[in-house]
Amino acid sequence: MKSQEDFGKVMDFIYEIDGLKRIFRMTKILNEDRHENDAEHSWHICMMALTLRDFFDPSFGEIDTARAVKMLLLHDVVELYAGDTYCYDAAAAKDKYEREMASAKKIFGLLPQEIGDEFHRLWLEFDEEKTADARFAAIMDKLQPFLLNFRNNGQSWLDNGIKKSQIENRMCLVLDSAPPPIVDYVKGLIAQAAENGWIVID
Amino acid sequence: MKSQEDFGKVMDFIYEIDGLKRIFRMTKILNEDRHENDAEHSWHICMMALTLRDFFDPSFGEIDTARAVKMLLLHDVVELYAGDTYCYDAAAAKDKYEREMASAKKIFGLLPQEIGDEFHRLWLEFDEEKTADARFAAIMDKLQPFLLNFRNNGQSWLDNGIKKSQIENRMCLVLDSAPPPIVDYVKGLIAQAAENGWIVID
Repeated sequence: MKSQEDFGKVMDFIYEIDGLKRIFRMTKILNEDRHENDAEHSWHICMMALTLRDFFDPSFGEIDTARAVKMLLLHDVVELYAGDTYCYDAAAAKDKYEREMASAKKIFGLLPQEIGDEFHRLWLEFDEEKTADARFAAIMDKLQPFLLNFRNNGQSWLDNGIKKSQIENRMCLVLDSAPPPIVDYVKGLIAQAAENGWIVID
Repeated sequence: MKSQEDFGKVMDFIYEIDGLKRIFRMTKILNEDRHENDAEHSWHICMMALTLRDFFDPSFGEIDTARAVKMLLLHDVVELYAGDTYCYDAAAAKDKYEREMASAKKIFGLLPQEIGDEFHRLWLEFDEEKTADARFAAIMDKLQPFLLNFRNNGQSWLDNGIKKSQIENRMCLVLDSAPPPIVDYVKGLIAQAAENGWIVID
């Protein structure tokens, strides 16, 4: 049981993270011409985690789905003050870690220390993509915009002149370690996107 | 490990539920004049569950947070075909259950049977508000729009001429069984909303 002071801190955090609904990503949602925001994206990848979990066998590593979902729920909270960094923007990527680390300190610092520290550790673990939970979560995070982009006729790839090699590089964790149905599916979509002229063949 | 056919079913589900980003609620988000959608709402209440969990002591019942989060992630998926039913709309409430039940069969039926059945059971459990996990989840679900409405100067209450007794009725699970910091906070906001003329005193 937490204190009244802790309750106030949690409420501040709950109001503050509402701002994620105003952080827009490069990808658009389906069947409507508007960009997706971080809150929607975070929800969608959690649903993907719940439904794709059983395709991962123990050779991937032991996945704690609840822990991975927790990472996915909070992984973009750091964008509140750091903004969304487009995954193919090399210039913005340079100081992404510093910007997000400062943002993490600020947003997780609103919470009672115990929860704030736990969230901060989970975010760092997610960001490092080393543990099975983090790799599984990162696969969901990379897969979702890829799927939406394909369904939207390559929208954000065309908007930004993205090359096939950039996508393969971005999707390397998926291509290298996701289970066969996911890898085959992604490879098929990349080939189709290239054939359709939605990505630059290099 | 699931089959290739199961993978196709999960993908269909993942694309289909993107539609939740186009189901709008009565409540508006903070700091922007637009309605909140179900995907954003679902993400927000999961974050509330993670941060408010520790304020619930064992007298409430044993809460499995991961299970409650799962319920919250999928609780509004049934609105895909049933639409959002405003909680103070008595006419729409009459056939809400039938509409949502038909929608549940359709959307969860897209999934491989084992996952679909699990989701359907979790949704029914959530809807019944009997188990500790379902009551905890339902408290998050009722609390979130209440908080946003208050922060938005009573927006959806004023838009719909909502009475104090309707809010107290809507919030009765929260007022009756949430831990003291939450109950005190909600009572304080209701009193303040009445004082500010945002709800009809009856």
